[in-house]
Amino acid sequence: MVNACICTIGDEILIGQIVDTNSAFISRELNKIGVKVRSRISIGDDFNEIINNLENCIANNDLVVVTGGLGPTRDDITKKALSVLTNTKSFIYDTRQSEIIKSIFDKRGVQVTNLNREQALVPQNCTVIANYLGTAPGMLFKCGNKGEKLLISLPGVPYEMEGMFSRVCDLIIKYLTPGYIHHKTLVTFGMAESTLAEFIQEWESKLDKDVKLAYLPNPSTGIRLRLSVYNRNIEDSVKIVNTYADELRNLLGPLIYGEDDDTLESVLYKLLKSRSKKVAVAESCTGGTIMSRIITIPGSSEIINGGLVVYSNESKMDILNVKKETIEKFGAVSKECAQEMAEGVRKLYNADYAIATTGIAGPGGGTDSKPVGTVWISVAGDFGIESRMRVFSGDRLRNITRFSSEALNFLMTKIL
Amino acid sequence: MVNACICTIGDEILIGQIVDTNSAFISRELNKIGVKVRSRISIGDDFNEIINNLENCIANNDLVVVTGGLGPTRDDITKKALSVLTNTKSFIYDTRQSEIIKSIFDKRGVQVTNLNREQALVPQNCTVIANYLGTAPGMLFKCGNKGEKLLISLPGVPYEMEGMFSRVCDLIIKYLTPGYIHHKTLVTFGMAESTLAEFIQEWESKLDKDVKLAYLPNPSTGIRLRLSVYNRNIEDSVKIVNTYADELRNLLGPLIYGEDDDTLESVLYKLLKSRSKKVAVAESCTGGTIMSRIITIPGSSEIINGGLVVYSNESKMDILNVKKETIEKFGAVSKECAQEMAEGVRKLYNADYAIATTGIAGPGGGTDSKPVGTVWISVAGDFGIESRMRVFSGDRLRNITRFSSEALNFLMTKIL
Repeated sequence: MVNACICTIGDEILIGQIVDTNSAFISRELNKIGVKVRSRISIGDDFNEIINNLENCIANNDLVVVTGGLGPTRDDITKKALSVLTNTKSFIYDTRQSEIIKSIFDKRGVQVTNLNREQALVPQNCTVIANYLGTAPGMLFKCGNKGEKLLISLPGVPYEMEGMFSRVCDLIIKYLTPGYIHHKTLVTFGMAESTLAEFIQEWESKLDKDVKLAYLPNPSTGIRLRLSVYNRNIEDSVKIVNTYADELRNLLGPLIYGEDDDTLESVLYKLLKSRSKKVAVAESCTGGTIMSRIITIPGSSEIINGGLVVYSNESKMDILNVKKETIEKFGAVSKECAQEMAEGVRKLYNADYAIATTGIAGPGGGTDSKPVGTVWISVAGDFGIESRMRVFSGDRLRNITRFSSEALNFLMTKIL
Repeated sequence: MVNACICTIGDEILIGQIVDTNSAFISRELNKIGVKVRSRISIGDDFNEIINNLENCIANNDLVVVTGGLGPTRDDITKKALSVLTNTKSFIYDTRQSEIIKSIFDKRGVQVTNLNREQALVPQNCTVIANYLGTAPGMLFKCGNKGEKLLISLPGVPYEMEGMFSRVCDLIIKYLTPGYIHHKTLVTFGMAESTLAEFIQEWESKLDKDVKLAYLPNPSTGIRLRLSVYNRNIEDSVKIVNTYADELRNLLGPLIYGEDDDTLESVLYKLLKSRSKKVAVAESCTGGTIMSRIITIPGSSEIINGGLVVYSNESKMDILNVKKETIEKFGAVSKECAQEMAEGVRKLYNADYAIATTGIAGPGGGTDSKPVGTVWISVAGDFGIESRMRVFSGDRLRNITRFSSEALNFLMTKIL
């Protein structure tokens, strides 16, 4: 088993100005090639802290992946620390990265700045990992007494780091010999974590010792149930995980809507695409969130007619033909209004299916009978029109996320 | 200066199934009360790893904030580790949290499960921090030889943890005496990091020693420039930071559009609200992203007429009155189409301002003359109609984010 530590460098992480998404990506990719991430640390742009922490990381792990601190600006001191840490005083310009930097600036039609030219300068003892999407190259150092350990430094810009990571994995596999970890995730929607846990408690207690089950709740996807098998060969791992996954499917039935990286929007996309059907969306309280979630899927134009954000009563009436009496009698947050919105948008875009939402995301706008967190959702299609009310108790953003998740799940289950 | 370490617990973090957003929030809040986060670590649901790492954290810091591992399911072992770490064998039910748990289940109309009942069980030596939004309470332990250090354990669900954090800060201020760190951030849009850095290089080299400048690039907000002053009193810190901020404003002029937590959408919101104006949006390639960004701002209904997602050529023509000849002659991704979309949506919603986007987010759909990453943006208002083309080189999600950022910034600068 290869043990790894991920180290992210940057004051911006420690003061919380940015969320560290790199670590999650790297963890996921390392897991795929059988590297177990035992810990992650984040430290500031401080020379001594970097040296001390990285020394400690190298001592306790076979692999250390460092991100951040390679930018052109003066708050970036990682490269200096790496050269000290690996006892190299001489730096050389990497020819290939120099050319990449030049071509990036050529494309933009501007001169290479001195700061950027320096980014191709690397400690002589490292293996350079080219960064085709940005200016700072990755660097691989052999460490440990016999060079049996790896220290890999990558740029902190997620897009650039992700673009080079498959080559990073190739190097890790070449120099270390990772063991095997097998994961399978089933994705559920509609049951709270504790209820789910009690529901499968007995089954869970009978899992093999080297199999772990984790509950990963998320307001936009539901609860992901992840099965992990450690240290078996591929064939055995697949077999045991599939057996357990089938048992879970039998236990949970329609609560499970997908697996692994599936999301509500990706499953809905596959469903509609396989039937050559399209959907139109009318959003009041979710204000474009349902549409923006659907269009994250490449090719989503094939299943979308269009979407409308109808915040005001006027736009609901003018554009979707919601009746004035409906809003006067029942209010904009009502079953009746949601239904007319769904009918209206389906007609307007000539769509096979429609989703409509109307509710109160907060923090203002709630009443006793319709508190903040209330949403009415209607879905329309070959099954007719169906509506559902839900009341959530989150803040504005969380409510909007959960409203949109409920809506996507509602249409998905009606189609299935 | 109070030094702190944040420790997040959970296999789900180490295998990368979730992104750790808690650490960023906690860092930010601790900074506000003058606590310096020196490092952050993430470890798995492993009893010995938790014990070893937390012992180490306590030895090297005044304050350790732990999140995660308090859920009702069996992968959660933090509470056991904390009791061992603080030498407590006896557990008691916290009355208040027991009542909260009961009332949460009452609201849902279901019986309290045994797993959830156990969540009110806490080590006897801790100070309980009530969790009004969920079932797992927070716990504060005094550590160190003389009880001079704090170990605080909080639930991992972001919404719940955030809901109790102001009370956590009160306790930290009560038991420790934090020093003072002052930050001010100016937010820029429209210039690349390295160009910006060269542009202000000379000015930056003259900053006082206890003042730090950090560059925080982000595709949805632009580059944030953060000035930090360490260890001065409040008055001095504010004075020095304001002086430097004014100098930066003089240097960068209109590139700076906001400060601190400002985002393109929040600044546009304030701008429109102060003028009692409203905007309508027609989105093709950004598919609702612009609208969903605007509606994250509470009260945004006051500045929104509505929005449309018009993916297909038909919907552009049918709903927005884009001319058939325009699309045939120039294509849907063209200045002419974007202009007619902006005019159409402004008319449809009777809006003061309009934004329209049409482009190719990828991965498919690009041509030689209009590669993936191309977008045409039009904005309309009292200034007339203006259009702009941009070409980005990201993946689908990054392109969509940058398209929408450009569009928000475009309208903002035209209004100003």
